[in-house]
Amino acid sequence: MRACLIKMANKDILQVQYVKNPHLESMEEDILYHFNLGTKTHNLPAMFGDIKFVCVGGSANRMRAFAQFMHQELGQPGHVDDIRDICEETDRYSMFKVGPVLSVSHGMGAPSISIMLHELIKLLYHSRCRDVILFRIGTSGGIGLAPGTVVITDKAVDSFFRPQFEQVVLGKVIVRSTELDEGLSKELLQCSTELPDIPTVIANTMCTHDFYEGQGRLDGALCSFSTEEKLEYLRKAHEAGVRNIEMESTVFARTGINGTSPAIKKQLY
Amino acid sequence: MRACLIKMANKDILQVQYVKNPHLESMEEDILYHFNLGTKTHNLPAMFGDIKFVCVGGSANRMRAFAQFMHQELGQPGHVDDIRDICEETDRYSMFKVGPVLSVSHGMGAPSISIMLHELIKLLYHSRCRDVILFRIGTSGGIGLAPGTVVITDKAVDSFFRPQFEQVVLGKVIVRSTELDEGLSKELLQCSTELPDIPTVIANTMCTHDFYEGQGRLDGALCSFSTEEKLEYLRKAHEAGVRNIEMESTVFARTGINGTSPAIKKQLY
Repeated sequence: MRACLIKMANKDILQVQYVKNPHLESMEEDILYHFNLGTKTHNLPAMFGDIKFVCVGGSANRMRAFAQFMHQELGQPGHVDDIRDICEETDRYSMFKVGPVLSVSHGMGAPSISIMLHELIKLLYHSRCRDVILFRIGTSGGIGLAPGTVVITDKAVDSFFRPQFEQVVLGKVIVRSTELDEGLSKELLQCSTELPDIPTVIANTMCTHDFYEGQGRLDGALCSFSTEEKLEYLRKAHEAGVRNIEMESTVFARTGINGTSPAIKKQLY
Repeated sequence: MRACLIKMANKDILQVQYVKNPHLESMEEDILYHFNLGTKTHNLPAMFGDIKFVCVGGSANRMRAFAQFMHQELGQPGHVDDIRDICEETDRYSMFKVGPVLSVSHGMGAPSISIMLHELIKLLYHSRCRDVILFRIGTSGGIGLAPGTVVITDKAVDSFFRPQFEQVVLGKVIVRSTELDEGLSKELLQCSTELPDIPTVIANTMCTHDFYEGQGRLDGALCSFSTEEKLEYLRKAHEAGVRNIEMESTVFARTGINGTSPAIKKQLY
C-alpha cells in the first residue's frame, strides 16, 4: 500500500483579505524576492490582473507541463513552447501564465511552499486580482487506495492526524486551522465523473515534514522502527480517515487557502 | 540588521556509520528517487567512490557555479561548461562532480534538505566512500553583523535557541542533537585569515521553518507582530549567541553531519 503513488491537490477561493499585514500599506516598495518581481520594477496589475486560477505544485517541470496542457485546453494562441518562465531570473521557483491561469512551482516541504505562498498572495494582492481559485496538485503516497487514485483533500492533517498547522512566530507556537471548502470538494468530485478511468475520492491528506522517517519508509539513511510499527502507524492514519500523505497540505490550508483536489488528467504526472 | 545577507555553511566529517538503518542490508535494490539514481541502474562506486568533499546549498544555479569554481581551483581538465548535472533527469535536485568534490543543491527548508541528505548519505554509503567532509554553504540573514560576513556555525539552534532538532517519527516526537565539530570550525576560521577582505566569525546559526513570520519579517502576506516585538525577538536571539538565521542547519546537523562554514569567495554568491 505504501508504495503506491496517487495524485492529490488542494484548492480554495482566494480573496484579497488573505493578506493580513498592516505593515504592507506603509511600504514604498514590495519586493517578492523569490519570484524576482517587485511593485516598482514590474507593472503587476498589467502582468497578472486577469488571473482567475492558480495551480501550484512541487516540480518546475510539471508546472510547465501543466501550463502547456492548459494552453491546449483553453485554445490559447501561439505555440506551447513559447510559454516562458516568468521567474527565469531566479531558480527558487518557476511561474507560467496561460490566459487567466497561473502555474507556479513550490519545491518540496512546508517551509518551501510557505515562502512561495507568502509571495504569491502578495502578488495577487498587488495585482488587484479578485475571486481567484487556488489549487495544489501533486503526487502523494496512498494508504489503502489503488495506485493512480486522485484524492480530493477533505481535511489536511498533521502527523498526529490533527487538522491544524503549528508554526513558531517570534519564539511562540501558533496553531492555525486547516479547514477546507466542503462545497468545492464536492464540485470537484462531480467533475471527476467525467473521467471514469481515474478513480477519485474525497478523504483526509496527511502532511509530514520528512519523506523517509516521517512517512514510515524503511529505506531512508536513518530508520529506527520495524515493519510492524510502520504498519501500525499507517493503520492508525487510515482509521483517522487519511488516504494519502504528502508534505505541503497543512501550510497550503493554513492561510485560509484550504484544500480539495481536482480530478486531473493522469498524463500530466 | 535584519536586511543584511551573510554567508554561512555547515560542515563535518561524514563516515559510513551515519547510515543507521538495519533494513538497508536486506534490500535487493535501493532507488535514490529524488536523484534518479539506483544501486541496480548505476555503478555507484565507479561514479562516486573517489568523493572526499561534498558541498550542499539551496540553489541549483549556485551549486553549478560552485562546481565550476572548484573546477578552476583544482585545475581540472576540460571546460567548465562541460560539467553536467548528474540529476538532470529530475528537477528535484542538481548534482555536479568535479574530481573528488560533489556539489549538490537541496532547495529551501528543513524537509527539502532532509530528503536530499537521506539519499546523499545512502549514495556515499553505496559508493563505499570514506572520510568524506560535508559542507553546507548558503546565504542567511545576519544579526548584528556587517553584510557579507561569513558565519562559521558553532551550534545550529531552533527557533527557541535550543541546539536540537525535533522531528515526528510514526507520530512520536524525537529530539536529535545538533552538536558541531569544534576543531573543524577553528580550522576553517584559520583558513579565513587568508581572505582578509571577508569578515568571518564563529557563532550560532538559528534554523527556522518559515522565512517571513518565522524570521520576524514585517513584509510577508501575514504579519501579526509589531516592529518592537520583532526587535525584541532578534535581541533575545543575539543574547543566545545567534548571529545568522537560515532554514536548514538543524537538519543538516541532526544526522551527525554537523556544522561549521568555510570562508568562501564572495563572488560565488
